[in-house]
Amino acid sequence: MKVLKSSIRVPVRFSETDAMGVVWHGNYLKFFEDAREQFGKDFGIQYLDVHAQGYFIPIVKSEISHKASIFYGEEAVVHIILEQHDSAKIVFRYKVINDTTKQVAATGMTMQVFMFVSDRTLELIKPEFYKIWEMKQNWIDA
Amino acid sequence: MKVLKSSIRVPVRFSETDAMGVVWHGNYLKFFEDAREQFGKDFGIQYLDVHAQGYFIPIVKSEISHKASIFYGEEAVVHIILEQHDSAKIVFRYKVINDTTKQVAATGMTMQVFMFVSDRTLELIKPEFYKIWEMKQNWIDA
Amino acid sequence: MKVLKSSIRVPVRFSETDAMGVVWHGNYLKFFEDAREQFGKDFGIQYLDVHAQGYFIPIVKSEISHKASIFYGEEAVVHIILEQHDSAKIVFRYKVINDTTKQVAATGMTMQVFMFVSDRTLELIKPEFYKIWEMKQNWIDA
Amino acid sequence: MKVLKSSIRVPVRFSETDAMGVVWHGNYLKFFEDAREQFGKDFGIQYLDVHAQGYFIPIVKSEISHKASIFYGEEAVVHIILEQHDSAKIVFRYKVINDTTKQVAATGMTMQVFMFVSDRTLELIKPEFYKIWEMKQNWIDA
Repeated sequence: MKVLKSSIRVPVRFSETDAMGVVWHGNYLKFFEDAREQFGKDFGIQYLDVHAQGYFIPIVKSEISHKASIFYGEEAVVHIILEQHDSAKIVFRYKVINDTTKQVAATGMTMQVFMFVSDRTLELIKPEFYKIWEMKQNWIDA
Repeated sequence: MKVLKSSIRVPVRFSETDAMGVVWHGNYLKFFEDAREQFGKDFGIQYLDVHAQGYFIPIVKSEISHKASIFYGEEAVVHIILEQHDSAKIVFRYKVINDTTKQVAATGMTMQVFMFVSDRTLELIKPEFYKIWEMKQNWIDA
Repeated sequence: MKVLKSSIRVPVRFSETDAMGVVWHGNYLKFFEDAREQFGKDFGIQYLDVHAQGYFIPIVKSEISHKASIFYGEEAVVHIILEQHDSAKIVFRYKVINDTTKQVAATGMTMQVFMFVSDRTLELIKPEFYKIWEMKQNWIDA
Repeated sequence: MKVLKSSIRVPVRFSETDAMGVVWHGNYLKFFEDAREQFGKDFGIQYLDVHAQGYFIPIVKSEISHKASIFYGEEAVVHIILEQHDSAKIVFRYKVINDTTKQVAATGMTMQVFMFVSDRTLELIKPEFYKIWEMKQNWIDA
């Protein structure tokens, strides 16, 4: 599969831990969001660029598999990969590494679709601006 | 001082605790928000009513004093009071009771102002709809 | 499949919305948590009961599929079902209804495992207390 | 007043915005937390160092004054100052700059106290380790 890759270091906030002393499971979706931000910066396709084209790109599906905990004081590194798809959806895969223990803390996936800002209806085919952006990228084998 | 009063019971979410095993301090601002919601319902002045009048009412000041912890599994009750003021600001005071221990967990204050949705500038005098709402209320001594 | 069911009404907090004006996707995991809490109360198996038996029950897998948005001012109702499994895992399925529009806003799943509080290692077989709890329940067909 | 200073750049997460399109007011306490983290790293007094000495340092008071909004896509820089006090409390002051508009978005304060991890009672005098840490610092005029 052809992919584009990026990664980001995420320090763990105290407020993100829970009473088990580790990062609360739901906060991994924030780490995924941080990784998408970094990806957007690296490849010139940030959320606001997409918005300027008249689209929201809401998350329609997300999955997280937790393998190991991240304790307060530890750092996470999130690796993000964009998969190439023919249909009008944006699928990212994630691997969260506990950079202190070097263990895989979690893996995950998010799927986004294109929605018109104007009337919040779904765009069923790939928007032109996105196809152009895709063509310009230097996709590599995963 | 003349006030209007309300209160709400808030169960403590696991995700709201931190690695000290208690509610993370910043989450009290969510409890305050819950109390404002309840107040809005009780007195017919919800956020969306205000928005329909053309105003945002952003928080411009907030204060929290923590007196005791709330552990996971305990319940909080938030008491909220609206103070009567002449100027174009909305001042609520809060008391958060740990309903399991009956201790005061925190007290606090928020101040909101009126901002035009249209251009996000400040409204310096009390909007007419708000003055009318105030007049209809049955204010009591604090 | 044999299941146990519960449900809970969840008012949408303003702080839970995002710049698209709807509930931020990650916050559905908090709604799922609220539903597990309610389930625990209804069936006498709350987090702290489990903890008292010497176990954490961390989430090892979660999935959310978003079908429709929930705007601020709308209310969600979360339906939760516990599936009966032979292995040492706890699998809940969720359906989040936007109670204002009556649309299904999201469906989801979480899987939890048993972990010893003492050394944070995994318990690979169903703990005795949990088997006893399961036996006492009145499972119904899904 | 004698102080120690630090600062940190904080990208604004989409999940931290609200339905007004700006950073939700309560999230500034997370920015303050980020700044305390950075301060701890810069001056060799991180949360876990304090914990290793047998103390929690819970927030007992926090204040935020909001001056301007931060929109999604903008970056915040948080300046943090530790004030020198004789009593057993830790007082930080904060200034949050919207680095895109160069406006002051907020100012704030937090007060922390020393609490024994062992029994969660308050330490009323400055712990020895903290006095030693204070003496080693090169305090400057605010």
